[in-house]
Amino acid sequence: MVALLSKTPSNVQPFVWRGSQQQGHLEILNQVELPWQEQWMQAFESKDIAMAIEKMWVRGAPAIGICAAFGMFLAARGCEQDAPSFVRHMQRAKQVLDATRPTAVNLTWATAQMLKLSERLADDPLRNHRLFEQVDTIWRHDAKMCDQIAQHGAPLFADGARILTHCNTGALATGGRGTALGIIREVHDRSLRAGKRIHVWVDETRPYLQGSRLTTWELEKDDIDCTLITDNMAAHFMQAEHVDGIVVGADRIAANGDTANKIGTYNLAVLAKYHQIPFYIAAPSSSIDPKCKSQKSIVIEQRSSDSVKRIRGIEICSPTVRAAYPAFDVSPHELITAIITEHGVHEPPYDFVQ
Amino acid sequence: MVALLSKTPSNVQPFVWRGSQQQGHLEILNQVELPWQEQWMQAFESKDIAMAIEKMWVRGAPAIGICAAFGMFLAARGCEQDAPSFVRHMQRAKQVLDATRPTAVNLTWATAQMLKLSERLADDPLRNHRLFEQVDTIWRHDAKMCDQIAQHGAPLFADGARILTHCNTGALATGGRGTALGIIREVHDRSLRAGKRIHVWVDETRPYLQGSRLTTWELEKDDIDCTLITDNMAAHFMQAEHVDGIVVGADRIAANGDTANKIGTYNLAVLAKYHQIPFYIAAPSSSIDPKCKSQKSIVIEQRSSDSVKRIRGIEICSPTVRAAYPAFDVSPHELITAIITEHGVHEPPYDFVQ
Repeated sequence: MVALLSKTPSNVQPFVWRGSQQQGHLEILNQVELPWQEQWMQAFESKDIAMAIEKMWVRGAPAIGICAAFGMFLAARGCEQDAPSFVRHMQRAKQVLDATRPTAVNLTWATAQMLKLSERLADDPLRNHRLFEQVDTIWRHDAKMCDQIAQHGAPLFADGARILTHCNTGALATGGRGTALGIIREVHDRSLRAGKRIHVWVDETRPYLQGSRLTTWELEKDDIDCTLITDNMAAHFMQAEHVDGIVVGADRIAANGDTANKIGTYNLAVLAKYHQIPFYIAAPSSSIDPKCKSQKSIVIEQRSSDSVKRIRGIEICSPTVRAAYPAFDVSPHELITAIITEHGVHEPPYDFVQ
Repeated sequence: MVALLSKTPSNVQPFVWRGSQQQGHLEILNQVELPWQEQWMQAFESKDIAMAIEKMWVRGAPAIGICAAFGMFLAARGCEQDAPSFVRHMQRAKQVLDATRPTAVNLTWATAQMLKLSERLADDPLRNHRLFEQVDTIWRHDAKMCDQIAQHGAPLFADGARILTHCNTGALATGGRGTALGIIREVHDRSLRAGKRIHVWVDETRPYLQGSRLTTWELEKDDIDCTLITDNMAAHFMQAEHVDGIVVGADRIAANGDTANKIGTYNLAVLAKYHQIPFYIAAPSSSIDPKCKSQKSIVIEQRSSDSVKRIRGIEICSPTVRAAYPAFDVSPHELITAIITEHGVHEPPYDFVQ
């Protein structure tokens, strides 16, 4: 029996393995329904996992990666065929999982790891057991990475700091404490030991509202003081000198430090510069793409404007209005005070070459 | 019969007088229901107007002022008492109207004008007629002011300019074409004559969504091309060099040019500076408060955080989450390229002394 990582150092977890390796299942928290209800779905088969990823019940690159690894394990468990058929079965499972979120790098990375092991162990009677261990390894690795990011990042903030963040980079999005939110959790813990409490300003993060829906929910669960603001209020609170620092995640970091992240991040980067407030990026080093030289090579994904025109299905403008939804924006390296990965605090000039 | 101003140079109007002076009524467009339905309410009595203002069916300082003046006229029309009783009746009507939006300066200014005239004409058999004329004068004055602002402001933009705006400063908020949106309308008209079309970026303007609900609706009515964006996207489109200029309204302008306006305006002011994009304020000169020396004297009104936590009545966060809602923010004068009033284009250094 593998001692599967079952508890992160937070009260929040996006999925939990229940039961034995042979009979058990993955329970996935439906993040679409947060914070209105804590609805858990049970995944006994690979296709359940694929559906959960596709419907965005689970989100956040690391969390998706771990879930997809579970999907590969469940695919293996459901296959009693001989080695060549098993490998073909696993290849198909990978295809199905990969297609759920075509741009998610962690997803294909995780399924590739699992497929490679499946091919190597196709004849091994313990192949399922080894695959389960591999999921555990991927999960633990992510949780450890979150811890390392938190340990490196926390000293950048004073005890009792007032920190602003954007989107959700927390336990819900990862296999551990989170990236940017992991740092915030660690600053909170250290501040408590010093008899102080931090305060977190949470951008609501339109259009998808990850801040209002998910980040405030996570912070409440861990009893961390926070105030929800609309994205356009951040400047006002910086002007009022109520923000000591900003920390956000990253989707992709170019070799020169230019960072693509959730739309609205660049807005904060400019505001931070103007108000002379430190602006930090926190992300696993796997987000760094040394082949991507700079902002110029980053293509911004355009999503359906429906999320801008509707909130929870309700129209907020005339249906004929045109709206734009660039999913990400890019903060140029000169606006970034430091980039925190599991390896440490990277300061400018950034030069992430292979 | 007074030739009441019945048509602004726009397809949009927040209220219309119907019928004769003696029997007619004011029809008010319920802006709370825009853009979902165009619901008009009929005001035959002063208390109907007070309710419409209180419930924010009509909004925007100049529009509220004109409506309140109609409210005073309707109060006079409904009173057949002798002079002393009439004056007391009008004083009470003013009190009721003023209490509907305690911070609205235009409202009390308009009701004071009407009360003064009521006191002077209390014995005049034509007092109602004169009061009706006075409403018309106030309305026409506002429409003319919008025109003057538009004429002064339009030359600051090239034909076919791409202009970003925030909140709603249009025909819905005034007695004419609007202030900032009046300028945009004029740039549109001039561009059309030159065979070009402008493009307007409309900030959705959380939390109250005046941009998505009202401004896009107005622009569609006048066939002006626009794209709705969430407030946190503005920076991205400035970085992409898709914004030639920004023009917004003002709630209050200090003697040194520091300008209070809808929350999110200061955010744009900082972004404009960083991207070297002109940032203009457009407002009637009555918004200038020479007694208010600078930002330091401006108190920011804090509103109920319910609007942040709910959108159209629907929760977007856990009910226990704390949220902030500063109604306004202040853009310091050094970030403002010019302030446009009915008197012309004021450039720095600003020195609005009495």
